[in-house]
Amino acid sequence: VSETDEKRETLGEISEAEILSRVFPRLPVSAHELLGPGDDAAVISAPDGRYVVTTDMMVEGPDFRTDWSSPFQIGYKAAAINLADVAAMGAVPTALVVALGAPAHAGVSDLEQIADGLRAACDELAPGCGVVGGDLSSAPALVLSITAHGDLESREPLTRSGARAGDIVAVAGELGAAGLGLDLLFARGIEAHAEFATVLDAQLQPRPHIGLGRVAARSAATAAMDVSDGLALDATRMARASEVRIDLSSELLSAFVGALRDAAPGISASDDELLDYVLYSGESHALLVCFSPQASIPAGFAPIGVVTGLTGDEPGVFLDGAPLDARGWHPFQTG
Amino acid sequence: VSETDEKRETLGEISEAEILSRVFPRLPVSAHELLGPGDDAAVISAPDGRYVVTTDMMVEGPDFRTDWSSPFQIGYKAAAINLADVAAMGAVPTALVVALGAPAHAGVSDLEQIADGLRAACDELAPGCGVVGGDLSSAPALVLSITAHGDLESREPLTRSGARAGDIVAVAGELGAAGLGLDLLFARGIEAHAEFATVLDAQLQPRPHIGLGRVAARSAATAAMDVSDGLALDATRMARASEVRIDLSSELLSAFVGALRDAAPGISASDDELLDYVLYSGESHALLVCFSPQASIPAGFAPIGVVTGLTGDEPGVFLDGAPLDARGWHPFQTG
Repeated sequence: VSETDEKRETLGEISEAEILSRVFPRLPVSAHELLGPGDDAAVISAPDGRYVVTTDMMVEGPDFRTDWSSPFQIGYKAAAINLADVAAMGAVPTALVVALGAPAHAGVSDLEQIADGLRAACDELAPGCGVVGGDLSSAPALVLSITAHGDLESREPLTRSGARAGDIVAVAGELGAAGLGLDLLFARGIEAHAEFATVLDAQLQPRPHIGLGRVAARSAATAAMDVSDGLALDATRMARASEVRIDLSSELLSAFVGALRDAAPGISASDDELLDYVLYSGESHALLVCFSPQASIPAGFAPIGVVTGLTGDEPGVFLDGAPLDARGWHPFQTG
Repeated sequence: VSETDEKRETLGEISEAEILSRVFPRLPVSAHELLGPGDDAAVISAPDGRYVVTTDMMVEGPDFRTDWSSPFQIGYKAAAINLADVAAMGAVPTALVVALGAPAHAGVSDLEQIADGLRAACDELAPGCGVVGGDLSSAPALVLSITAHGDLESREPLTRSGARAGDIVAVAGELGAAGLGLDLLFARGIEAHAEFATVLDAQLQPRPHIGLGRVAARSAATAAMDVSDGLALDATRMARASEVRIDLSSELLSAFVGALRDAAPGISASDDELLDYVLYSGESHALLVCFSPQASIPAGFAPIGVVTGLTGDEPGVFLDGAPLDARGWHPFQTG
């Protein structure tokens, strides 16, 4: 997409077999693959007789821009956001299938770099997970649709509905950086990377703590979810599914405000403005977990509040006792 | 997409939660679902400790046109082509995940009808299979990316590489009708449906014989694949993977030529032209199976040739002893 090399090869110029022979060797291999690419379907092991499955599609335009994201980053992020959903079930990611739509004029090297991004994400975030199959389609814009699978290792899945009064609410990962990075990209373009690399990277190449999903499941977690549409909205979904109140503490959240300020030194924003990013901005892909009060919170998780029972009121999220708006991200609205 | 009702609601006008509440009740339910939609991932049973997985993306423009296909047909076909890949492994389809990209101006009723098509395909072709999860994205054109899963019921998977000299080559389903239907659509538009309903329906709403995948696997099948890119090309892939020759007989294939003529009565095409459709046109989604010579060919399969060992020559496909071109469909070439 970004190359100017006059020898740049496009997808329309070479055979499908050649495209696949260039891309396949770069893809990560799954340790759970019993039968890999080359047939109509792959065969994957499910040691405990179940598997976890989730899907997320990324579309050029609404979900990424090729003037901001490299093909490597697009592949990395597409894998990472799917891995985060598997981790949120307390599962260990095992296998991805990847459907890719691209215009005929897209470069073969772009596909190679997307494959490199998929591999880097699996290697760094979820070793043992790999790409077991895929599909290549012609499309007017780049579309990357990934389905991720995971192994529960004989544990019960973590859900949104398991939170109970008395639980500790904790988060692993960043809150607000990906959203702040997106606003900086809209305001100043990719040039903002020179000054705000950390928050732009949080947006362009998120690195969720995939391994902590299994850690949480082994540590008396009662509920978990991936924070993708903003903490306030996602915690509200968890509160409703569990029929509880989630009471957040601004004192505890101040650690995330401080981390956000450290990640964007020199940013001209008040603490209240940064707290807004922490609470409402999307694509953090932090892991939101409720732990039973008897549990010791594992390393990597920071407490942000407690779960409270309903006493006649509606399920919802509160900050220092005041109800929080469940506003957040919607796929068909802009801004 | 096709509605003119002035009350037509679009995806951009209502909340994501409302869209999902309208679409979800219409989706087919999987009998293998242990935990369904509502969490970050679903949990599916894999009774024999393995599962089959495949993915196929359909994109508006290259893969379908909304002036030819109804939303119902788009959903039906997207499910059917994925189910066909599961069946080709000798597996029983269990669960689909569906990622859908659509413009904000798309109608909510279009999504409802896509869901109806997904349900009809599962109910008619693969009872017990259902949609266990999904993702809804904003996209410049309609994109439907499905991942399908299947259960091998403790059998070994059927692959492309198992064909052995002496095997009978057989097909279940139609050959050529979907390709002929596409050419009629390009030549005469959807108006051709009045005269050529059967072949247009083969293109717009294919009904592959999903249940025959399991039947083949139980009947001493040695190799199988879904015919999606044309018989000649796909059989060549099987011959290469198995390192054999596949010898097709025009006398046996004449049954498919006759069926094609019956499906398009009054078509002005010679038998040779129809044989070209049988051999080379794509999207048939017939099931190509090799059976061991000891097997009795199950009902629903028609023999089309035999597998021959290599005697110094290259693997490939022959018709009445003459080598066949492995030409067929390529995703980034037109025509």
